[in-house]
Amino acid sequence: MTDLRMFMDTYKAKLEERLFAAVQNEAIEPKLKEAMHYSLLAGGKRIRPLLLFATIDALRGDKNLGLHAASAVEMIHTYSLIHDDLPAMDDDDYRRGQLTSHKKFDEGTAILAGDALLTMAFSEIASDETINAEKRIKIVQRYAKNAGALGMVGGQQADLMGENRDLTLEELKSIHARKTGALLHASVYAGSVLGDATQEEQERLSVYAEQIGIAFQICDDILDVTGDTAKLGKETGSDEKKQKSTYPNLLTLEGAKKALNEHYALAIAALVDSGLKTDYLIGLADLIVKRDN
Amino acid sequence: MTDLRMFMDTYKAKLEERLFAAVQNEAIEPKLKEAMHYSLLAGGKRIRPLLLFATIDALRGDKNLGLHAASAVEMIHTYSLIHDDLPAMDDDDYRRGQLTSHKKFDEGTAILAGDALLTMAFSEIASDETINAEKRIKIVQRYAKNAGALGMVGGQQADLMGENRDLTLEELKSIHARKTGALLHASVYAGSVLGDATQEEQERLSVYAEQIGIAFQICDDILDVTGDTAKLGKETGSDEKKQKSTYPNLLTLEGAKKALNEHYALAIAALVDSGLKTDYLIGLADLIVKRDN
Repeated sequence: MTDLRMFMDTYKAKLEERLFAAVQNEAIEPKLKEAMHYSLLAGGKRIRPLLLFATIDALRGDKNLGLHAASAVEMIHTYSLIHDDLPAMDDDDYRRGQLTSHKKFDEGTAILAGDALLTMAFSEIASDETINAEKRIKIVQRYAKNAGALGMVGGQQADLMGENRDLTLEELKSIHARKTGALLHASVYAGSVLGDATQEEQERLSVYAEQIGIAFQICDDILDVTGDTAKLGKETGSDEKKQKSTYPNLLTLEGAKKALNEHYALAIAALVDSGLKTDYLIGLADLIVKRDN
Repeated sequence: MTDLRMFMDTYKAKLEERLFAAVQNEAIEPKLKEAMHYSLLAGGKRIRPLLLFATIDALRGDKNLGLHAASAVEMIHTYSLIHDDLPAMDDDDYRRGQLTSHKKFDEGTAILAGDALLTMAFSEIASDETINAEKRIKIVQRYAKNAGALGMVGGQQADLMGENRDLTLEELKSIHARKTGALLHASVYAGSVLGDATQEEQERLSVYAEQIGIAFQICDDILDVTGDTAKLGKETGSDEKKQKSTYPNLLTLEGAKKALNEHYALAIAALVDSGLKTDYLIGLADLIVKRDN
């Protein structure tokens, strides 16, 4: 087993143990708890938490300090998937090969499970007494900014409004920078705070995060054209069916693959000669551009 | 004009100015911004912010320190109204005499406007640099706890599941303690942190908040039976139509009025001989039990 694989398995397991514990409170309404648990423990690549842990590792910090912030970002990501899948939004029945929350439970419960996970994310960071209050506040602030109207939620709104019309490449980039990039960026930011990055280290990590974010989305769009339904756990061709603008249809499939490699290269370049311990960050970037799901 | 009325008008105006400013960011997607603004500035009694300011005043603190925490609690309250009104939840077309968010805009936008307001609430507290990080973290933590699965969201889930069946008085109390009480309580808590309450003061204020929360909900239930549609801005009799259990149908109308007065008296009793400057807190309690909307 490679060192990267060992790191991923170890911290994915720690994360999932923490996520599991976070929703076990006896006093949570049973159906709500079940819905929160269902989506939170539905598998998933855990890219955001792993980026956070890898960033702390790159700074030679204590990765265990990232557990609550990593759980929080995964709660935010999970809530966004539950809400995005709703009939009034992307109207998807399956996610990661299992029924979406509103199909498994009902729409009201799905909305509330999402609301509860988003709210719990902030409690998860704020109640982490192993981290000083200044750092917790920085992370709350960045998560809220990047997940909110200026970030992820705004990106989803723009995405909804962009369906059924042709977007320019600039519009597409702006949507994805907010919808996907912002939360990846927040994860790396949290890692850089918890690993005590210098200003220069933080700037390099920020470029890495930004470029990885773009590469991640281009890869998603490519997989929607070329991917395997079984591996993806959702139907391919769904972007085309919804007449969504994507990198492949704006740039051609070849052009999208070329752009993917360019952004990957920019992400890696930001880490060169940085003095950071970059093997996990580079390993995760490799996985992001080479994944088949 | 009484001193209480002057206090309310002044701090309502300051609050609304801050809420207005918070959603003016140029970079927010226009339709999302419009929906956030529409619900946030739709009037409303601003009870939670006023309780927060009144609590700081009771502690002889600087009320202006409460502006961000007050805005945040009103953002959380507003998001909860938007989501509660959705077709999958209470399915209401009107709120405060105007169309609900999903009727005015569309369901996707309403869900996202709610998500964005909830997220913005945490950014609002975290970015308030007039308050030290420890206090900000305490408020984030309490807001997240009381608004989440153990508090408001859990109460709404229990409320949804309680429709069309008879609840016991205990179940009804438990639902309202979470759905309405938790956020009122969080407001008073934030005021007590910002006003540097002693342990004893905090405990008294907590009893006040808890009793006011129950009184508030009993009053709501009574108004749904006896109130005036024009003053309420929503139809009366809606609880009966939805076959919701309420205080009047569990206790009779007379019994509910008696319970209202008892909880009011307990709230006031908690403040007696406390050394606190209690005129605004008592004034707000009076308004809560005597309101007609």
